[in-house]
Amino acid sequence: MIDLRSDTVTRPTPAMREAMARAEVGDDVYGEDPTVRLLEERVAELLGQEAALFTATGSLANVLALQGLVTAGQEVLCAADAHIARAELGVHAAVNGLTTRTWTDGPLALDQIRELFAPDLGPFFVPTAAVSVENTHNFSGGAVLALEDLKALRAWADEHGTRLHLDGARLWNAVAATGVDAATYGGLFDAVAVCLSKGLGAPIGSLVAGSADHIAEARVWRKRLGGGMRQVGVLAAAGLHALDHHRERLADDHEHARLLAESCEIDPDSVATNMVVVPDVDVETFVAVCAAEGVRVGAVGPRTVRLVTHLDVTRDQVELARPVLVRALASSRPTAAGS
Amino acid sequence: MIDLRSDTVTRPTPAMREAMARAEVGDDVYGEDPTVRLLEERVAELLGQEAALFTATGSLANVLALQGLVTAGQEVLCAADAHIARAELGVHAAVNGLTTRTWTDGPLALDQIRELFAPDLGPFFVPTAAVSVENTHNFSGGAVLALEDLKALRAWADEHGTRLHLDGARLWNAVAATGVDAATYGGLFDAVAVCLSKGLGAPIGSLVAGSADHIAEARVWRKRLGGGMRQVGVLAAAGLHALDHHRERLADDHEHARLLAESCEIDPDSVATNMVVVPDVDVETFVAVCAAEGVRVGAVGPRTVRLVTHLDVTRDQVELARPVLVRALASSRPTAAGS
Amino acid sequence: MIDLRSDTVTRPTPAMREAMARAEVGDDVYGEDPTVRLLEERVAELLGQEAALFTATGSLANVLALQGLVTAGQEVLCAADAHIARAELGVHAAVNGLTTRTWTDGPLALDQIRELFAPDLGPFFVPTAAVSVENTHNFSGGAVLALEDLKALRAWADEHGTRLHLDGARLWNAVAATGVDAATYGGLFDAVAVCLSKGLGAPIGSLVAGSADHIAEARVWRKRLGGGMRQVGVLAAAGLHALDHHRERLADDHEHARLLAESCEIDPDSVATNMVVVPDVDVETFVAVCAAEGVRVGAVGPRTVRLVTHLDVTRDQVELARPVLVRALASSRPTAAGS
Amino acid sequence: MIDLRSDTVTRPTPAMREAMARAEVGDDVYGEDPTVRLLEERVAELLGQEAALFTATGSLANVLALQGLVTAGQEVLCAADAHIARAELGVHAAVNGLTTRTWTDGPLALDQIRELFAPDLGPFFVPTAAVSVENTHNFSGGAVLALEDLKALRAWADEHGTRLHLDGARLWNAVAATGVDAATYGGLFDAVAVCLSKGLGAPIGSLVAGSADHIAEARVWRKRLGGGMRQVGVLAAAGLHALDHHRERLADDHEHARLLAESCEIDPDSVATNMVVVPDVDVETFVAVCAAEGVRVGAVGPRTVRLVTHLDVTRDQVELARPVLVRALASSRPTAAGS
Repeated sequence: MIDLRSDTVTRPTPAMREAMARAEVGDDVYGEDPTVRLLEERVAELLGQEAALFTATGSLANVLALQGLVTAGQEVLCAADAHIARAELGVHAAVNGLTTRTWTDGPLALDQIRELFAPDLGPFFVPTAAVSVENTHNFSGGAVLALEDLKALRAWADEHGTRLHLDGARLWNAVAATGVDAATYGGLFDAVAVCLSKGLGAPIGSLVAGSADHIAEARVWRKRLGGGMRQVGVLAAAGLHALDHHRERLADDHEHARLLAESCEIDPDSVATNMVVVPDVDVETFVAVCAAEGVRVGAVGPRTVRLVTHLDVTRDQVELARPVLVRALASSRPTAAGS
Repeated sequence: MIDLRSDTVTRPTPAMREAMARAEVGDDVYGEDPTVRLLEERVAELLGQEAALFTATGSLANVLALQGLVTAGQEVLCAADAHIARAELGVHAAVNGLTTRTWTDGPLALDQIRELFAPDLGPFFVPTAAVSVENTHNFSGGAVLALEDLKALRAWADEHGTRLHLDGARLWNAVAATGVDAATYGGLFDAVAVCLSKGLGAPIGSLVAGSADHIAEARVWRKRLGGGMRQVGVLAAAGLHALDHHRERLADDHEHARLLAESCEIDPDSVATNMVVVPDVDVETFVAVCAAEGVRVGAVGPRTVRLVTHLDVTRDQVELARPVLVRALASSRPTAAGS
Repeated sequence: MIDLRSDTVTRPTPAMREAMARAEVGDDVYGEDPTVRLLEERVAELLGQEAALFTATGSLANVLALQGLVTAGQEVLCAADAHIARAELGVHAAVNGLTTRTWTDGPLALDQIRELFAPDLGPFFVPTAAVSVENTHNFSGGAVLALEDLKALRAWADEHGTRLHLDGARLWNAVAATGVDAATYGGLFDAVAVCLSKGLGAPIGSLVAGSADHIAEARVWRKRLGGGMRQVGVLAAAGLHALDHHRERLADDHEHARLLAESCEIDPDSVATNMVVVPDVDVETFVAVCAAEGVRVGAVGPRTVRLVTHLDVTRDQVELARPVLVRALASSRPTAAGS
Repeated sequence: MIDLRSDTVTRPTPAMREAMARAEVGDDVYGEDPTVRLLEERVAELLGQEAALFTATGSLANVLALQGLVTAGQEVLCAADAHIARAELGVHAAVNGLTTRTWTDGPLALDQIRELFAPDLGPFFVPTAAVSVENTHNFSGGAVLALEDLKALRAWADEHGTRLHLDGARLWNAVAATGVDAATYGGLFDAVAVCLSKGLGAPIGSLVAGSADHIAEARVWRKRLGGGMRQVGVLAAAGLHALDHHRERLADDHEHARLLAESCEIDPDSVATNMVVVPDVDVETFVAVCAAEGVRVGAVGPRTVRLVTHLDVTRDQVELARPVLVRALASSRPTAAGS
């Protein structure tokens, strides 16, 4: 099976498992796990932040990141198709009481953000406490946010006294695609969430990074929310291994995505990172034709499928998948095929 | 003083106070207040709903209305400048855990609503449980939503299995402006909040209306949220008086608003109900000039003031205010005045 | 009908209605209602606190009182039959996330409180942020807490850095029973809730009192929870009238309760204030016999009924009710009657 | 170092690490991890429940267990020193809005439970939805609850229509101490939480077990709370290994605890499982004397230390620790030493 559904499906490599098996561990609830401490320090530095905290999931990293920037009764602005708004089951409202307004013109619509921004006018109106962006932006097909736009956002935020959150679940892909340093991206934000288990291939793990005070408070809330694990070095070791060995190879995933795009009659230059969004297909047919030939793809809309490349998709597998995709496309666009 | 800041500032009339003084009352926590029961039955019928419940505020009516339509982890869609999103201090997230996404193209942007709508795709994504609209729409300057648009919204909602909430804080103004029956508006929605203390001039009171089950559950949550009052007939009597005597006169408020608009060089035909929004002024100057001559107006943006007509602004006061507004406008638009 | 179910059932007197009809009012959301301001200042002073805030209900006053003393993740200790634990529908947990542990040995069990108290041991355990007591204590039959015990509680709280909340829904009854000044009671606490609509006979209204900062924050949360009313002077006027005219007469209610106790074969000296708890009866029979003769009483347990005296029960009615109670008791304790 | 602070400090054994390194994994958010599925099925069966769900922590398992039994506005009864009340940072109130009342007479005070129980009397009072007990009971020194008491609790619960929650963080210790089957204990409850990372020695992991419907809903909430991990088989493999190899050896921990008790002048027969609570000592001295000789112990009260045996404390280490404890006791009870 060639699994193109998501980059979350990767399995730890033998070398990563070996690193896990050798990991030095301790009770991290007591702050005694040396491996997770190493990982937290390393990620904080990589992201240009004071401190970082390991979490079991990216959702929890986002919860803890936003919680330190926005209190109940304040709002966070984000894109209408942000992961935090669409795919985290409402946790930011349900647990933290954060309210949200959304912009509609793409992953980073500066004009709309300026328009939506609500200053603090006293206790009658909801003030905007933070703006959240996602880089790369999952539901825009892995789009990379332009560094100059992020800098403009930072300047505007400083001027207006609002704070910035980065959902960097796939920040490593943005780094690989642009060559911009992770700390350059990360340093523009007041809090950052990053993931080790998507492109980087660790089995479990994300981190939230921010100021030392923010992270100290996040540590307490992580425990309150049932996320304070014990000998977590077994997972942190996988994360450290991933940071050492799986960041540079993300460029391969991006190249693989361009090849898959070609087979789907999509301009490879429109593919920013490791995702290809194929529009206007009969979804059931496309998925079924692929499955019949050992290629798993996922629907992300009523007439849209998505292909994602990752650590567990080799170049050979990409070449095997390409003709399958050509056939799937032909079968699932009957009018085009009939013309 | 002529107070044009808001229609919330009205004081009960002598006749209304007399009705309050005579009100038959009982312990409404035990369901024994005959006057509030009368009011609840009357409002339910007026709005084409099965049942209604008295609340101390419009915010609480909206909380209870939305709570019956949307559960924690689901979302409600609304306009980016909806009262529920901007001016209720985040209660829908803070208390009910509701998450929100917003459209940006005006009070009722059907195309954007269709675009934003999220079907229930299983436990990975936030589904849209309800769409909320506000009629008249406060932060659009008292705009009235078109009946045909509301009917289109209802048809779309039925097709997609989502529910509709009406924030009708100023529904009575929409009725007065269009001649459309309150029940015609109300019957299009699954839950409706209406207010007695804005245009209608009662000192305190709103209602939430919906299905009998919804309202029964709202009664429990009203008590939980500290809103279950005792001899509430003293307030309900004011509401009944307002429904009897202050609905038709809203047309006067609308006529008054048109007159005020003229004095501010605004096309009276752009004034839908009882609000005039004056853009592009030096706010401090405008407010100060008015205040110096006994007219109170409020800022609603960095360069915007708002004038609101209501029960406590007579035709004579409108005529007195008009030349004051002309002078305030001239002083607060120096370039125009200098030309 | 002679209604002995609760002191919440009182109807405003003609003089109180007259005060309401004459009340000077303004928009209290803007802080412009002079009558509610007068009431708030007066109650703050009466309770020995810096500031006070009007609320529609005693539940809301307790919510706002506790919210200023305890944050989510901290705990409040209270009696197992405290009103806040038993009869406010879980709002302190549901809205404020407060967790509770309870003592079991009566309204104010100092030894158990000392035993339960949890110091702040760092972010692994829940610390006790406040202790809440209720005076008079409703579900103990209107028991009055001893002043020396309250002083001992205060001294202990100061020593341990914890805070004290007084649910004073019926504090006026304690004052009437003991002659201790309300400010003497109130001054021992960090936050106090009092009610105007039980013994005092106002139709609607309670207040929360505390430090100026606490009350400023409570004002915002009152609005967030949908409790920020407009021309609230119509209710505040009833409260001011009640404070002027209905406090001293509470002694009559207490005397009436003693008379009712006698008729139920209960030692009048065991009746501390305005409640009589009649144990070991067949509840249905007792209630039915009373109802048949025009006396309403309520069950508060499987074999317990409660009689409550108040503003709407005159001495003549008490005398009328007494033989009815004798008959009800005889009918509902068949074995005793048969002996 | 001999670490007697807690059984949470254990490190995975080489064999356990080997099992983790070999684990077959998949994306568990998609339900595709075969190892975690195996673990969940096995634990469900072991506990006599329909289904089970893996969680990163025992706190999260308790959150999801209680959430399925109690809704916001209802209460759960528990011991005043229950782990859920004392050591989970208030999450049950903060996240789920559950309110709590507590009994004070030990881990399972049936009389007090009957007294505290609140039936559902309609929407004025908080009803008791569940009773929670902990077996073994941590803050009572690892006490085992008597099976006949648990059966009596179940019978009473059935009669009164309330539900039962078992915090079984150390249920395996109870099983080892009594020989009662885990399913016999587990089958008495509506929901059970158990832990793999205390006595059993897995680095990370707990499970919640209950009805199939309960667990299906728990799966969604686990994701909402940021607890939905990906290739979780690497952790589940450790749990399966622990179930296979570390349950029977808990009897050794219990024997070790008895030996430590002797050295602390405590009756070994009072030691039920793997904990020894040493009262009436100068805590700082006791901890320091131990530490100086390579034995780590923890304070659990102002004059109380606790010794916990576990997988990483061998019989040889116990023998080494014993004379250290004798010296620590002598130094920290100066009056006794001086006599």
